[in-house]
Amino acid sequence: MAQGYSFKYFNVDFPSSSPYVAHVEINRADKLNSFFEDMWLELRQVFDKLSTDPSVRAIVLTGAGDKAFTAGLDVKAASQGTLFEGGASDPARKAWGMRHHIVEFQDCITAIERCEKPVIAALHGFSFGLAIDISSAADIRVCARDVKFAVKEGNYGWVKEVALTARTFGAEEALRVGLVNAVYENKARAVEEAFKLAALIASKSPVAVQGTKEILNYSRDHTVSEGLRYTAVWNSAALQTTDVNSALLSGIQKRTPTFEKL
Amino acid sequence: MAQGYSFKYFNVDFPSSSPYVAHVEINRADKLNSFFEDMWLELRQVFDKLSTDPSVRAIVLTGAGDKAFTAGLDVKAASQGTLFEGGASDPARKAWGMRHHIVEFQDCITAIERCEKPVIAALHGFSFGLAIDISSAADIRVCARDVKFAVKEGNYGWVKEVALTARTFGAEEALRVGLVNAVYENKARAVEEAFKLAALIASKSPVAVQGTKEILNYSRDHTVSEGLRYTAVWNSAALQTTDVNSALLSGIQKRTPTFEKL
Amino acid sequence: MAQGYSFKYFNVDFPSSSPYVAHVEINRADKLNSFFEDMWLELRQVFDKLSTDPSVRAIVLTGAGDKAFTAGLDVKAASQGTLFEGGASDPARKAWGMRHHIVEFQDCITAIERCEKPVIAALHGFSFGLAIDISSAADIRVCARDVKFAVKEGNYGWVKEVALTARTFGAEEALRVGLVNAVYENKARAVEEAFKLAALIASKSPVAVQGTKEILNYSRDHTVSEGLRYTAVWNSAALQTTDVNSALLSGIQKRTPTFEKL
Amino acid sequence: MAQGYSFKYFNVDFPSSSPYVAHVEINRADKLNSFFEDMWLELRQVFDKLSTDPSVRAIVLTGAGDKAFTAGLDVKAASQGTLFEGGASDPARKAWGMRHHIVEFQDCITAIERCEKPVIAALHGFSFGLAIDISSAADIRVCARDVKFAVKEGNYGWVKEVALTARTFGAEEALRVGLVNAVYENKARAVEEAFKLAALIASKSPVAVQGTKEILNYSRDHTVSEGLRYTAVWNSAALQTTDVNSALLSGIQKRTPTFEKL
Amino acid sequence: MAQGYSFKYFNVDFPSSSPYVAHVEINRADKLNSFFEDMWLELRQVFDKLSTDPSVRAIVLTGAGDKAFTAGLDVKAASQGTLFEGGASDPARKAWGMRHHIVEFQDCITAIERCEKPVIAALHGFSFGLAIDISSAADIRVCARDVKFAVKEGNYGWVKEVALTARTFGAEEALRVGLVNAVYENKARAVEEAFKLAALIASKSPVAVQGTKEILNYSRDHTVSEGLRYTAVWNSAALQTTDVNSALLSGIQKRTPTFEKL
Amino acid sequence: MAQGYSFKYFNVDFPSSSPYVAHVEINRADKLNSFFEDMWLELRQVFDKLSTDPSVRAIVLTGAGDKAFTAGLDVKAASQGTLFEGGASDPARKAWGMRHHIVEFQDCITAIERCEKPVIAALHGFSFGLAIDISSAADIRVCARDVKFAVKEGNYGWVKEVALTARTFGAEEALRVGLVNAVYENKARAVEEAFKLAALIASKSPVAVQGTKEILNYSRDHTVSEGLRYTAVWNSAALQTTDVNSALLSGIQKRTPTFEKL
Repeated sequence: MAQGYSFKYFNVDFPSSSPYVAHVEINRADKLNSFFEDMWLELRQVFDKLSTDPSVRAIVLTGAGDKAFTAGLDVKAASQGTLFEGGASDPARKAWGMRHHIVEFQDCITAIERCEKPVIAALHGFSFGLAIDISSAADIRVCARDVKFAVKEGNYGWVKEVALTARTFGAEEALRVGLVNAVYENKARAVEEAFKLAALIASKSPVAVQGTKEILNYSRDHTVSEGLRYTAVWNSAALQTTDVNSALLSGIQKRTPTFEKL
Repeated sequence: MAQGYSFKYFNVDFPSSSPYVAHVEINRADKLNSFFEDMWLELRQVFDKLSTDPSVRAIVLTGAGDKAFTAGLDVKAASQGTLFEGGASDPARKAWGMRHHIVEFQDCITAIERCEKPVIAALHGFSFGLAIDISSAADIRVCARDVKFAVKEGNYGWVKEVALTARTFGAEEALRVGLVNAVYENKARAVEEAFKLAALIASKSPVAVQGTKEILNYSRDHTVSEGLRYTAVWNSAALQTTDVNSALLSGIQKRTPTFEKL
Repeated sequence: MAQGYSFKYFNVDFPSSSPYVAHVEINRADKLNSFFEDMWLELRQVFDKLSTDPSVRAIVLTGAGDKAFTAGLDVKAASQGTLFEGGASDPARKAWGMRHHIVEFQDCITAIERCEKPVIAALHGFSFGLAIDISSAADIRVCARDVKFAVKEGNYGWVKEVALTARTFGAEEALRVGLVNAVYENKARAVEEAFKLAALIASKSPVAVQGTKEILNYSRDHTVSEGLRYTAVWNSAALQTTDVNSALLSGIQKRTPTFEKL
Repeated sequence: MAQGYSFKYFNVDFPSSSPYVAHVEINRADKLNSFFEDMWLELRQVFDKLSTDPSVRAIVLTGAGDKAFTAGLDVKAASQGTLFEGGASDPARKAWGMRHHIVEFQDCITAIERCEKPVIAALHGFSFGLAIDISSAADIRVCARDVKFAVKEGNYGWVKEVALTARTFGAEEALRVGLVNAVYENKARAVEEAFKLAALIASKSPVAVQGTKEILNYSRDHTVSEGLRYTAVWNSAALQTTDVNSALLSGIQKRTPTFEKL
Repeated sequence: MAQGYSFKYFNVDFPSSSPYVAHVEINRADKLNSFFEDMWLELRQVFDKLSTDPSVRAIVLTGAGDKAFTAGLDVKAASQGTLFEGGASDPARKAWGMRHHIVEFQDCITAIERCEKPVIAALHGFSFGLAIDISSAADIRVCARDVKFAVKEGNYGWVKEVALTARTFGAEEALRVGLVNAVYENKARAVEEAFKLAALIASKSPVAVQGTKEILNYSRDHTVSEGLRYTAVWNSAALQTTDVNSALLSGIQKRTPTFEKL
Repeated sequence: MAQGYSFKYFNVDFPSSSPYVAHVEINRADKLNSFFEDMWLELRQVFDKLSTDPSVRAIVLTGAGDKAFTAGLDVKAASQGTLFEGGASDPARKAWGMRHHIVEFQDCITAIERCEKPVIAALHGFSFGLAIDISSAADIRVCARDVKFAVKEGNYGWVKEVALTARTFGAEEALRVGLVNAVYENKARAVEEAFKLAALIASKSPVAVQGTKEILNYSRDHTVSEGLRYTAVWNSAALQTTDVNSALLSGIQKRTPTFEKL
């Protein structure tokens, strides 16, 4: 294992079979990988660290065990925590404290989106509540046929019907509406395909891959003309990379290009 | 019928079989439920009233008769009205008057979107012109297999091809492109399913449901980070609701929770 | 051929069978219609000219030959050009020059989007790299079953997976994700259907069609309420057109309306 | 007095000396013109009515009596009203009700900004709390030397220092920071000058004046290029007005132009 | 005179006393430098050319003669032109044509803003109508004491009072509200100071100066955090310039740095 | 001194004469308080900590010594650091590293803006380069008469003239253009007045003060209607505070209110 990647609720390893690929596993299978505060704080640490690790170029995110990617919020742990209590009795002070907690929770989940390396989530079994938030923050999503989604906690779902009725839905519906990119027979196959995608991405120029992620994230939240303007400025430096020549040359010489770390 | 819901062009009733659900029916079947100025002014009144009625938690919108949800604008009535005439001969004054009419028309249709309660449109038969606008303003759309859509009046359709060619299309295409959430065998079945959805939504906490609608509407028009910021502030008050405890407790006690009016 | 439409890399003609329809063909079949700087500068000229030609109401864009709509950037030509070299040795001056080149390249491609007339792209065979950019700038896209897409140059793709992995994909996947509106048996059929769409659009009021294109482009990049506000101002003048009466009258008299040039 | 302008808390009259000018006076001098809920609801009625009255082209807004334009919120009345109570005990339901009240209050104040005719506020004496909000919503502000401003109720004033310290300030400071356009010796003089400005505006083409107000309001909230785009569409109809010729002709003939109502 | 700078309505010269400074003079003194269509088309050509001329680093813009910077639109010429006529009789087609004219006019004026080099306007005498638009598009404005401003054409003024009343105002008021940076005794002194500013700017690194102009233009139209994000990407290439070292070294060696062309 | 506030480059103390007020002093007087990387990283730590310390309600920021608030970037230290070097030789990798450094630098400075408590900067002597950035991030700025501003490092100053010419300017000009709120005779007086402002703010309800700062920061970057919407949601919880009653009651009883910590 690479140094400094020892965490309590997540396994992080670097399979020798997939160079430059990191594997993050949610590691609380006995509780269906459900989350409480310490876990999402650690999740942020994991992705902040991977974001700037030059030996990582793509990340696969999975849940331990057969039953669940994550069953969502650990309601029992949460009800004992600060989120639903607060100390104050004044509603305004209570609201202030809650907003702090919510903002921190959001910041932990979006660490996956902010992460400069592409993240591929492989979902299976129960994938409730913040499973949706976590996988939406990922760049690519694949799933096993047995996946069971739900938007439970009532927060900002991805379509009105599902959010307003809070009903569950399966792999095929998720594929049809574009929530996942692909469906595979079972967890093992979904994870296997996720690693293939990760390996493919990791074999490209990291200047190109990480720039593409940044530009796509930017473009999603801006008008087309704003996106083009940002792209032009970004690429005015990025296209000076020597990786362009490496890639062109490798194409001509029909060999696999190698790229320096970023 | 609840008090104050007597309208000329719309039936509004509250089926005893669906607590907290209002049923709005466009009631001009002999003219294929086509619209003229007085009707859209009344449509706004209907939804403004339902929006703040605490005994309503979900709304189903249908068209009377077998033939049409609505055939769109009543061209004959419109051509006698003020929209295409205006009194003035000066083109600039005419434009000023027209803009007033258009803005008021838009404001009447978006009353459905502004309505704080989720609105489910059940479409069937001819669903032309402003049927698209009305159902787009709704939160959930289901339809009967016999539905026939068209964007006729030339205004801002949902995709370029359909808007530019003004061609008609049916239920399956509408489902494929995500214009409707589901297709059912006929009008009766579509309406039945719409009521099931409405009943399901009406059984949830109105604090959660109406907050979710507000947040989803907000998020559609803002960046992801803006959406998260608004959600955090909103929920800092909303999560103080006693409904959270009611829901958790009911879950543990395996009984149906009940929620105070909002 | 209409006057002034003599270009080096593009055939522009006006089929007598389709009144008001212009046909633009990328004409470098021996190089798989791949692009270099002079070509995209000319592409802008073509569409800037068609944009304000009152005898044109719809445009069909195709690629010459059987093999490709366009294979993308002509890497060989590009590597000899200014884009990847620049004269300066100072990285900041080099970035300044590159930004100029990129902005001009983007401006040439978006000439298709800025064009006031609807553009229908009929794609077939290799449709790599800037084929995606060009067809995304078009209003409607149809393709032949043999089409083969890829996002190669690494810049601003349409979904993360495809952009990050740079993998190829075919007609059915393109249809499923909404990249193309329809798939046809082969190039001949795709082009035929593109002309039918163009003829249908060209038969409508140009005031309505060009206004619809402008409003749809505007609405895509703005919130719903901003879109409605712009539409109201736009239509305050547009609805004063005599074309509304012509269309209504023709409907009553069951004959085809004719519309003045715009 | 023009018909239909009978209000309880506001005098609305049309001085014969100033054609096309309406005078709105806050009329609760014994309570320093302080506001409570019924008053701001009526304020909205006043300005909504003037907005579409074709015989009005400019509006002067003043406060009755010598002591105050308005001392702000009537705290005593407010503390008995619904704003600070609400019926519900659930903090989330209470927040929902409060948001309703606040949104309605905001909507009443911004009726002045939405009003299609230019509004000139003439301030004097105590001008506390919502005096700032009301005059900010006006288009032009003049004041008497004895004016005394403060941001009291704790709501989002116009600069951080004044908002955060809630300190009072006078006419000269208001002029220096651009809060008011001009300072005059006393209330009589300020009101006199406000009427002169109103008369000058009322003598111009209403197509030009009301278009200018709309465009300036739009431009304040948009980028420069968005403002230019909106202006172009707006003026494509507005410049067709016959008022342009009237104004040019009057200039050549050296006589005062007259313009039709809008 | 540098090659290619021969224009009909503008003098463009390069004073040997001010290296890297271009002087653009509006050259129609007998008509108070008033504008008609051919002039603003040429204005765009002038600034588009200067924008990419590497031997220019700052531009001074003045009006010929003693009486006026520009008296605005040449009403007589304009009334004979296409702007107020159009050929069409259909109001919608007329509006379409007018919008084209207005957009082109706006594009000509904003050529000054788009120009990559800083532009300093030195105003004197009559500075009416589009004098405001032209100088607002400039980066820095100085004026002579005899300047007389007015917003005449009625569109897009800089403050409501001045725009709504169309009244004139002088140098001191322009300085107070920030419309001009400085006021000088007469035209000669204003032009002299404009050249001093231009020379000072021209002595700095063009990488820094032109980057600063781009970033300031961008930041004006975006939120603070958007501005910071753009700045970071921009500077990631710009700070690699060798000019940083040149400037630091010159500071240490107490000599004037020289910078390569951009 | 309160616990945990031991820093290397900043003195943080809590004067007993000003309850709830924190004093942050830049403490590198021998180098004119100039900054290098470790300092701005520590600056962020200081303000992140004060932001959530419930015993702090307002902050005064000053520079140690008589000569300077800060002379800006420590060029010598910077030239030895990573900002201008980077390890990589590939311009794209170098740009990537630089962007990281710039984003982190920006994040450290904006910690002052993100800080939930109002920050008052008291400037004196040399206030160059990032002195402008730091004080712009503060909420209120006062200065001594001897202050000497400049925008030196070439980064995005507050007006084009000053940014493009990089010239210095003094207290009176800073006051005139609104860069500072007030000018005092010398540093001692400026600091004294800053503490008076801080004490005044600290005596108000922290629910009101911190909410006002948040809302003002939000409103600066949004349209008026967006600002009103956010304010309504925010205040729906904030106005439930018991501080409203405390303030009203204290007003009636003519005594100083006290407020709970937040």
